[in-house]
Amino acid sequence: MKKTNNYFVVDPWKIVETKFDKNRVKYSESIFSIGNGYMGQRANFEEDYSGDTFQGSYIGGVYYPDKTKVGWWKIGYPEYFAKVLNAPNWIGVSIKVNEESLDLNKCNVKNFQRELDMQKGVYKRKVQLILKNGIELSVEVTRFISLNENSLGAIEYKILAINNNCQILIEPYIDSNIINEDSNWDDSFWKIESLKKTKLFSAIISKTNKTKFEVCTYMANKLFYEKKAVDPLPISIKSKSKISQSFKINIKKGKILTLNKIGGYIKAKENISKNLIDQAKEIVDKYLKFDFDDLLKIQIESWKKIWDVSDVKIDGDVNAQQAIRFNIFHLNQTYSGKDPELNIGPKGFTGEKYGGSTYWDTEAFCLPFYMLTKKQSVSKNLLKYRYFQLDKAIENAKKLGFDKGAALFPMVTMNGEECHNEWEITFEEIHRNGAIAYAIYNYVRFTNDFNYINEMGIEVLIAISRFWAQRFSFSNDKNKYVILGVTGPNEYENNVNNNWYTNYIARWCLIFTKKQIIKIQNFYPNDFSRIAKKTNWNLNEFKLWDKIIKNTYLPYSNEKEVFLQQDGFLDKELIKANKLKLTDRPINQNWSWDRILRSVFIKQADVLQGFYFFSEDFSLDELKKNYEFYEPFTLHESSLSPSIHSILSSRLGLIDDAYHLYLQTSRLDLDDYNQELDEGLHITSMAGTWLAIIEGFAGMKINDDTIHFKNNLPDKWKSLSFKIYVRGSLLQINLSKIHNNYIWEDKSTLKIIIKGK
Amino acid sequence: MKKTNNYFVVDPWKIVETKFDKNRVKYSESIFSIGNGYMGQRANFEEDYSGDTFQGSYIGGVYYPDKTKVGWWKIGYPEYFAKVLNAPNWIGVSIKVNEESLDLNKCNVKNFQRELDMQKGVYKRKVQLILKNGIELSVEVTRFISLNENSLGAIEYKILAINNNCQILIEPYIDSNIINEDSNWDDSFWKIESLKKTKLFSAIISKTNKTKFEVCTYMANKLFYEKKAVDPLPISIKSKSKISQSFKINIKKGKILTLNKIGGYIKAKENISKNLIDQAKEIVDKYLKFDFDDLLKIQIESWKKIWDVSDVKIDGDVNAQQAIRFNIFHLNQTYSGKDPELNIGPKGFTGEKYGGSTYWDTEAFCLPFYMLTKKQSVSKNLLKYRYFQLDKAIENAKKLGFDKGAALFPMVTMNGEECHNEWEITFEEIHRNGAIAYAIYNYVRFTNDFNYINEMGIEVLIAISRFWAQRFSFSNDKNKYVILGVTGPNEYENNVNNNWYTNYIARWCLIFTKKQIIKIQNFYPNDFSRIAKKTNWNLNEFKLWDKIIKNTYLPYSNEKEVFLQQDGFLDKELIKANKLKLTDRPINQNWSWDRILRSVFIKQADVLQGFYFFSEDFSLDELKKNYEFYEPFTLHESSLSPSIHSILSSRLGLIDDAYHLYLQTSRLDLDDYNQELDEGLHITSMAGTWLAIIEGFAGMKINDDTIHFKNNLPDKWKSLSFKIYVRGSLLQINLSKIHNNYIWEDKSTLKIIIKGK
Repeated sequence: MKKTNNYFVVDPWKIVETKFDKNRVKYSESIFSIGNGYMGQRANFEEDYSGDTFQGSYIGGVYYPDKTKVGWWKIGYPEYFAKVLNAPNWIGVSIKVNEESLDLNKCNVKNFQRELDMQKGVYKRKVQLILKNGIELSVEVTRFISLNENSLGAIEYKILAINNNCQILIEPYIDSNIINEDSNWDDSFWKIESLKKTKLFSAIISKTNKTKFEVCTYMANKLFYEKKAVDPLPISIKSKSKISQSFKINIKKGKILTLNKIGGYIKAKENISKNLIDQAKEIVDKYLKFDFDDLLKIQIESWKKIWDVSDVKIDGDVNAQQAIRFNIFHLNQTYSGKDPELNIGPKGFTGEKYGGSTYWDTEAFCLPFYMLTKKQSVSKNLLKYRYFQLDKAIENAKKLGFDKGAALFPMVTMNGEECHNEWEITFEEIHRNGAIAYAIYNYVRFTNDFNYINEMGIEVLIAISRFWAQRFSFSNDKNKYVILGVTGPNEYENNVNNNWYTNYIARWCLIFTKKQIIKIQNFYPNDFSRIAKKTNWNLNEFKLWDKIIKNTYLPYSNEKEVFLQQDGFLDKELIKANKLKLTDRPINQNWSWDRILRSVFIKQADVLQGFYFFSEDFSLDELKKNYEFYEPFTLHESSLSPSIHSILSSRLGLIDDAYHLYLQTSRLDLDDYNQELDEGLHITSMAGTWLAIIEGFAGMKINDDTIHFKNNLPDKWKSLSFKIYVRGSLLQINLSKIHNNYIWEDKSTLKIIIKGK
Repeated sequence: MKKTNNYFVVDPWKIVETKFDKNRVKYSESIFSIGNGYMGQRANFEEDYSGDTFQGSYIGGVYYPDKTKVGWWKIGYPEYFAKVLNAPNWIGVSIKVNEESLDLNKCNVKNFQRELDMQKGVYKRKVQLILKNGIELSVEVTRFISLNENSLGAIEYKILAINNNCQILIEPYIDSNIINEDSNWDDSFWKIESLKKTKLFSAIISKTNKTKFEVCTYMANKLFYEKKAVDPLPISIKSKSKISQSFKINIKKGKILTLNKIGGYIKAKENISKNLIDQAKEIVDKYLKFDFDDLLKIQIESWKKIWDVSDVKIDGDVNAQQAIRFNIFHLNQTYSGKDPELNIGPKGFTGEKYGGSTYWDTEAFCLPFYMLTKKQSVSKNLLKYRYFQLDKAIENAKKLGFDKGAALFPMVTMNGEECHNEWEITFEEIHRNGAIAYAIYNYVRFTNDFNYINEMGIEVLIAISRFWAQRFSFSNDKNKYVILGVTGPNEYENNVNNNWYTNYIARWCLIFTKKQIIKIQNFYPNDFSRIAKKTNWNLNEFKLWDKIIKNTYLPYSNEKEVFLQQDGFLDKELIKANKLKLTDRPINQNWSWDRILRSVFIKQADVLQGFYFFSEDFSLDELKKNYEFYEPFTLHESSLSPSIHSILSSRLGLIDDAYHLYLQTSRLDLDDYNQELDEGLHITSMAGTWLAIIEGFAGMKINDDTIHFKNNLPDKWKSLSFKIYVRGSLLQINLSKIHNNYIWEDKSTLKIIIKGK
C-alpha cells in the first residue's frame, strides 16, 4: 500500500508543501482547498496551468439533475441524480511575461512552497521560477474565502522581477465556460445569461440548466506597482463566457507588481428580491476599498472565534495535533449551519465525486461535532433538513412498493430525491433509515429538547418504522422475522440476508418510536391528536411492531460467540487482512467486485457500527469478542471505518489500537491512505476522527491499571476530567469546562497531553 | 397481463396482419423481420414514415465497441461492450404524389395488409390509401432477402392510381446517416468513406468507427410503367450520406408504376481481395437483369430445401402449427452456419437490445436445433466459435483474479471479449461456463465425433474446469466445497451463495473433463502429450478436483424434499405466482429490483434447468417433487423458461401443462407474452420451442394410460414411432425417418396430429 506519509511538513497549525511535483498537483489541490460553508475552492493555481489539474469551484446546494445512465435500467431507479456542479471560475489570473505565458508546467520551478494556515484560514503559495525566455520571477499568492461574508473571496497576487526588467501582461478574469471532472458524458451544465461590466467590477450571470440556480460570478481588481496604485486598462468581454481585465506594465528588476482581486458567487434566493448585480456591487463597494491586509485581519478574527470553541489541543505528538486541526478546519469550512437547505457533502467543497450532498454520514458521524461545538440551532437544522424532505422519502418508498406512509430516505440526496443509481445501494442499503432515527435519539439525549420529537421528529420516526414493519418478512423456516436482500454499512457485501446491523437498528427504531408515541400520547395529548391525524396513525400498528420486536432474527454463531454480519458469513474463508499482499490493497482498486464480495474482508465497521451506536445494550465481554473477531477482517477502505474501531478499542482499553486507528482516520487525507486524494477530501469522515477523541479517548477512564468503560458518554460530559495514556504516554483530557449551552467556551478546549514516547 | 392473442391471422404457413394500427407499427416491424443469416431487416416501410417506428437493418457480426458507462465503475468491467449496429438503409424509397409525400402516418389508410409467407421466405404489404390531396392509391410491396446470395435483397414496389391521374416522384435511395435505437448516448457509429455512383448502381462505402468494419451498401433500380421499362433519371448524391435515384412520371388513373430495387450489404473480408465496389457491381450485373418473379422463384426453391429438412407438421391446431413454423423460420433467418465467425444473437436481426451476439443461449438452447436439422459442420462451427475465443476467456478470468489457465467465457460477446457490464451478471452469472462444456458433451453424445474433444474441446474443458476448481471455496462451517456470490439462470436472484444449478454443473464439469482427460491419456497418448504441453496440464490437478467432486455442497431441504435453488431460499415468503395480481405482471416491468430479488418468484428455470440437462441423474419422483415445488413460483418472464418447463412436464406426463407451456413458448412473440415485442423477437428462445417438441412431446411415450419416461433421447431417435395425446387429443409423432447423417430428410418431417379437442 503506497502511502504519502511525511509529504507535508508536520506543524501544529499549518499544512505545508515544499516541493513542486507535477504528479501531485491534483492531490495538493484537494488538501489545500478552502471554503466557508457557502462556497469553496480547490487549490487550483490562479494563473494558467497546462499540466494535470482538477479545476474545482463549488457553490453550496447548487446541483444539476444529470440523467441516470446505467447498463440495465431497473424499476425504481431515479431518473435523474444530482451532480455537484463545478461553478464558474472566479480566481483566474492569466499572466504573460514578455509575451510568454506564466505556466508552472512549462517553466523551470526553482522553489515552490504552499501552506494552509488553519489558525488564520488562509492559503499561501510562493514560487520562484525561470521562464523559457530567461526571466526569473518570484510569485507570492495569498488567498482566502471569507468566513464573515458568504460571497467574498480574496486574492493577493505578487510578482517580483528577480533578474531583469520585463513586460507583464496581467489579466484577472472570470469565466463561466467550465466542465465537470466527474462526468462520463459531455453535457453542459451552465447557461450563460448575461455578462456585465461596470467601471468597478465585472459579473457573469449564469443559470444551471434544468435546476435553474441563478448565480452571479463577480470580480473586482486593484493593481499596485511598488505599492502605488496603477490605473487599470478597460474591462473587456473576451468571449461568450469570459470577462477579463487587462493590464500591461513594464516592471523593473527587483520591483514588485501586486494584484488584489476580490470575487466569488452570489446565489439568487427566493427571499432576496435585490438583483444579483446590485448585490455584487454592494459587496464590491464595501470590500474593494479595504487593504488586503485589513480583509485578512477580519478573516483571522473570524477563525479565532471558531477555534476558541472547537479546538482540540494535543501536546506531545505534532502529527496527531496537525491532523485533528486539519479535520476540524475542514468541517468548519464545509458546513456553517447558517442555511437549513445545506448539508455536509462527503467531499465538501473539495471535489465532485459521489454526486449529491447528504448521506447517512451526516447523522451517523457528523451530528455530534456540530452538536457540541455549535449552538443548538445548527444540529437542529440538520434534523429539520430530513424532516422537510419526509414527503419525498415517502414518495421514494412508494416507488419501491411500500405504502401507508412508509418512508425510505434516499441514500444520497440534494433535495430529498434519491440521487444514487446502483440497485444494491439505492434499493438495498436501507440501514440509512436507522441512522436518521438514531440522530433524533442522539440529539434529544444530548440536548433534552424533546419538543423536537413532538413537533417534527415523531413524523419521521413513524414513517421510518412503518418502512421497517413492511420490510421485515416472516420466515417460516426460521420462525422469525427476517430482512432479506440488503446491503449493510459494509458495502463489500451486496444483497445479503439478515445483515445483523440492519436487523438490529430496524428493531431498535420500532422500539424507540413506540416509546415516543406512548410518551406523546400520555403527556402531550394535543400533539398526539394532531400527529395521529396527520400521519393517519392507528394504534393497531403496534401489533405487528410488537411481534417483530419480540421475534427479530439476529444471526449469531454459538461456536464463535459473535453476532454474524449476515447469513452465511461463516461460509467464507476466514483469512485475516494481514495475510493480504500489499499489492492487493486497497482491494477495491485491485480486485474484481465479485472477488471482493465473496471474500471475508470488510470495508467498514458493520456489526461493530451497531456496537458503537448501542453500546449500552452489550457487555464489555460481548464487545471484546465481536471486536476481536471482526477487526482482523476489516480493511478500513471506507474513510468512515477506522474512527469507529478507534472508539471501540478505546472502550476496550486497547490503547495502541485506538491510537493507531485514530492516526489512520485523522491523517487519512494528509497521508492519502486510500489513494484517492486527487478526487477530494473525505469531509464526513473527519467528524469520525473527532469522535475518536471525544467518544473514544475521552471515554476511557484510566486510573493506573484500571480501565473503566464509560457508557452513554454525552450525559456525563459536563464534569469530566481525567488523564489517559496512549502508547505508553500520558494523555490528559479536560472536558470540565463544557458549559451548559452545549457550546465549548474558549476555556473548555479539549486538551490532550502526550508525554514521552 | 395484456396480451395480443389473435392479433395476427392464424394460418399454417403465413403471418398475416390486416389492420393499420399506428401504435403497433414497432411490434409488427419485429414480427415481419426478414434475414438470411448474413444480413437482416426489420419490417420498416420503404417509403418515408413520420410515425413511431424502430428502423433496423443489421449485418451479421458488425458491432461497435461502445464505451461502458455505469454509475460506479468496478474493477474487471469491460472497458467497451459490443453494440449490435444499425446498418445503413438500403430499402428506402421516397415517394411524392402531386408533391405530397406518401407517408402512412399522414394519409387516410383504407386497407392495410401484410403477410410473411414463411414457406416462401417472402414479405408482402398491400395498402390502399387516400392522400390529403385526394389522390387514392393502391400500393403493393414484395420484399425478400436472398437465402441464396448473402448480399442480395430485393423489393418490388407497385403503385396503382385508383381515382385520378397523378404525378409521381419516386426516389429509391441508400443512406448511411443512421442512428441506433438502443443507445443512451449519441455517438455516431459509421464513418462514410465514399459515395459512388455509376450508370448502373450506386454504393456507399462506410466504416464503423473503432472496429473498422468496412461495408458497401448498394442499390440498383429498374422502373416500369405498365410493365414497360422507363428510363431512369440520373443518380444523384443528395448529401454526405445519401444517394438517390429520382424518377418523376405522370401516371394515369388505373395504371401501375412498378419499381424493382435490389440492394444490400457487402462486408469486407480478409480473404477476399476484390474491392467492395467491384463485388457490388458483380452482384448487380448478375441479378439486375432478372425479372423480379424469377428472383422470387430462386428464393422459394431455397426455402423449400430448408423446409424439406426441418419442418414440423402439427395437424389439428393451427395456432401450434403456425407458431412452430414461425420459430423454425426465424432460426433459419438468423443463423446459416456458413460463417464460423457468426453466432445466434438473442434478437437475431430483429432488434438491437442486449448488445453482443453470443450468450449461453447458443449452447443451452440452440445447439440441438442446428445439430439435428443441419449438416454436422454447422453445430461443430458453434463449438469452434468458443474454442477460437478461449484465449480471451482465459484473459477474462485473469482480470477477475483467476490464474493458471482458468477460463471464464463472457456472458455475452461478439469477439470473445466480455460485453456485459453489470457486476451481478458479468462477474457472477458464471454458470454459462457450464453450458459451454455441456454443449461439447451434447454434441459428442449425438454425433459420436469424439475427435472434436481430442482436437479442440478438451482445451476448453480443462480451462473451464480449472476455473471451477478455483471458484469453489471450502466452508469450514459446512465442511463442504461451496460457491459463493453467484447469479444463477434465474436472474431474479443476484449474488447468492450456493446456487444449486451452478454448483451442480460445476461439479459435473470436473467429472466430465476428468473422464475425457483419462480417455485421451489412455487411448490417444500423442494427443495427450500435445494437450498436456499446450495447457501445462498436471495430473496433480485431479487431487483438488476429486476433493471437490466428493464434497460439493448441494443445498437440499429435508422437509420439502427438494433441492434448494440457493442458500436461504426457504427464508422467503412462499407465495405462489397465481396469487399475484395481473397488474403486477410482468414483475420486471412493475416492481422495483429489490422487491423482485427478495421475492420467491423465479424468472426462468433454475433447479429445473439442471433437471433438464442432467435428467439421467434423477428419478422421476425427484423430478416430480422439484417440478411441483418450483413451477408455482416460476413466472417465465425469461423467454427461455417455458420451453424447459414444457419439456419437463412432458417427461412427467403432465400433458396439459406441457401443451400450455409449449404454446406459451412457441407463441411468445406472436402473442407478445412479455410485452416487449417492439424491441425485437426472442430468437434463441425459439430453439427452446423446438426442444419442447423434440425433447418434450417426442420424449413422451404414451400407451393408453401408461406414461414411460424417455431418458437420454438423442441416442434413440433413429427408430422412434409413437402417438401421444395432448389436451385429450391424439398427438402423433413420427421420427422414424431421421437418417444416419443427422440431417432430416424431406421424408423425415416431424408430424404431430392433434385430433379433436
